[in-house]
Amino acid sequence: MRYELYYWPQIQGRGEFVRLTLEEAGADYVDVARGKGGMAKMEKLMRRKSSDHPPFAPPFLKAGGLLIGQTATILSFLGARHGLAPKGDAGRLWVNQLQLTIADLVLEAHDTHHPIAASLYYEDQKAEAARAAACFIRERIPKFLGYFENVLARNGKGAFLAGRALSYADLSLFQVVEGLRYAFPRAMAAQENQLPRTIALHDRVAARPRIASYLSSERRIPFNQHGIFRHYRELDA
Amino acid sequence: MRYELYYWPQIQGRGEFVRLTLEEAGADYVDVARGKGGMAKMEKLMRRKSSDHPPFAPPFLKAGGLLIGQTATILSFLGARHGLAPKGDAGRLWVNQLQLTIADLVLEAHDTHHPIAASLYYEDQKAEAARAAACFIRERIPKFLGYFENVLARNGKGAFLAGRALSYADLSLFQVVEGLRYAFPRAMAAQENQLPRTIALHDRVAARPRIASYLSSERRIPFNQHGIFRHYRELDA
Repeated sequence: MRYELYYWPQIQGRGEFVRLTLEEAGADYVDVARGKGGMAKMEKLMRRKSSDHPPFAPPFLKAGGLLIGQTATILSFLGARHGLAPKGDAGRLWVNQLQLTIADLVLEAHDTHHPIAASLYYEDQKAEAARAAACFIRERIPKFLGYFENVLARNGKGAFLAGRALSYADLSLFQVVEGLRYAFPRAMAAQENQLPRTIALHDRVAARPRIASYLSSERRIPFNQHGIFRHYRELDA
Repeated sequence: MRYELYYWPQIQGRGEFVRLTLEEAGADYVDVARGKGGMAKMEKLMRRKSSDHPPFAPPFLKAGGLLIGQTATILSFLGARHGLAPKGDAGRLWVNQLQLTIADLVLEAHDTHHPIAASLYYEDQKAEAARAAACFIRERIPKFLGYFENVLARNGKGAFLAGRALSYADLSLFQVVEGLRYAFPRAMAAQENQLPRTIALHDRVAARPRIASYLSSERRIPFNQHGIFRHYRELDA
């Protein structure tokens, strides 16, 4: 079965967490909206009155007869099917919990450049963004990444977030480090020495054959100023 | 087995979604931080170096040897154990997806009064909050609640979000309506006529014997100005 991923074709965004998991799984998938007529297909599916489980927003995944929305829900589905999550209940819940904490961080990273409303231009909330980004860099990056650093420290050398085996949460943490480095290069350069295990995990994920191949392919959309992680020099302390 | 819920004792907050599910399930639980010495116990558990699965933040639930954080993760665990989620994969994923959409709405509701940073006082971000709340009321409440209204419409008269049976997502949607009415009474009064199925679902949940009993008990903490949903007259259009 070929998965159909539906997400905005111009950005990494939340879809990137799904793309990374599909790539690491070696899954057969098509990134629908990036193909010819794909946007129309995505919009049709979002309007489709006949779907039992209409998604609120992209990304969503079509897997045979299933239509699944919300990034963390998609990942829990894929993780179970492709060995990218622990099999037992405790481990499965733990990886889901980690992913939701990553999702919280991702939303806060987005809101640094859009603290008032996603529907307004950045230029219409620049002053507010400057205040929000300063707090995010000073308080939130260390709190979130320090948490994951601590989780990795408990698990011992060479371990992943959920223990000895890679999970989709590791792929997501890799992506968060990538995104924060793009958005806040100066802030990250100043903080990374406090995060040796997180950075080492990032590097190990980047070096995995399927991920390395993906990152150097055209399937990986470059970071840009339309996604969740954006680089505005004035926001990077 | 008695569940131990850990959450801030003065507010409904995110813990309320867990409380409602435990109450509807008729589960044996203790709201630890509201008891004598409970806050110290909660803080100790958050610091505890020996936990394999340390929570990032409250709420978290202790269920025998399991320690589970993140509201939606806790609810997926409780839903499966207490018949408050569909048994099949498709239904289970659907309710999880709905819950994550509710979580997005809840976070946006919070950020209307704290758009810049949760660590700053409301008084230090009043002007920004006024802008954020206006967008939230005008764009986001109709978008989110309109989505749930549409889901309910597909399911037919008397149905719940996931079909014929109540799930934890219904309890959560009840709580969202309660919270939005508290925070934005004028805005909600103006919008509720567009949301007949959502309001009817709210009323049916409120009338369930265990929920009605809970809501009239001292276990239900009243809304106040410290929680996620806060009433500032100047933010209510």
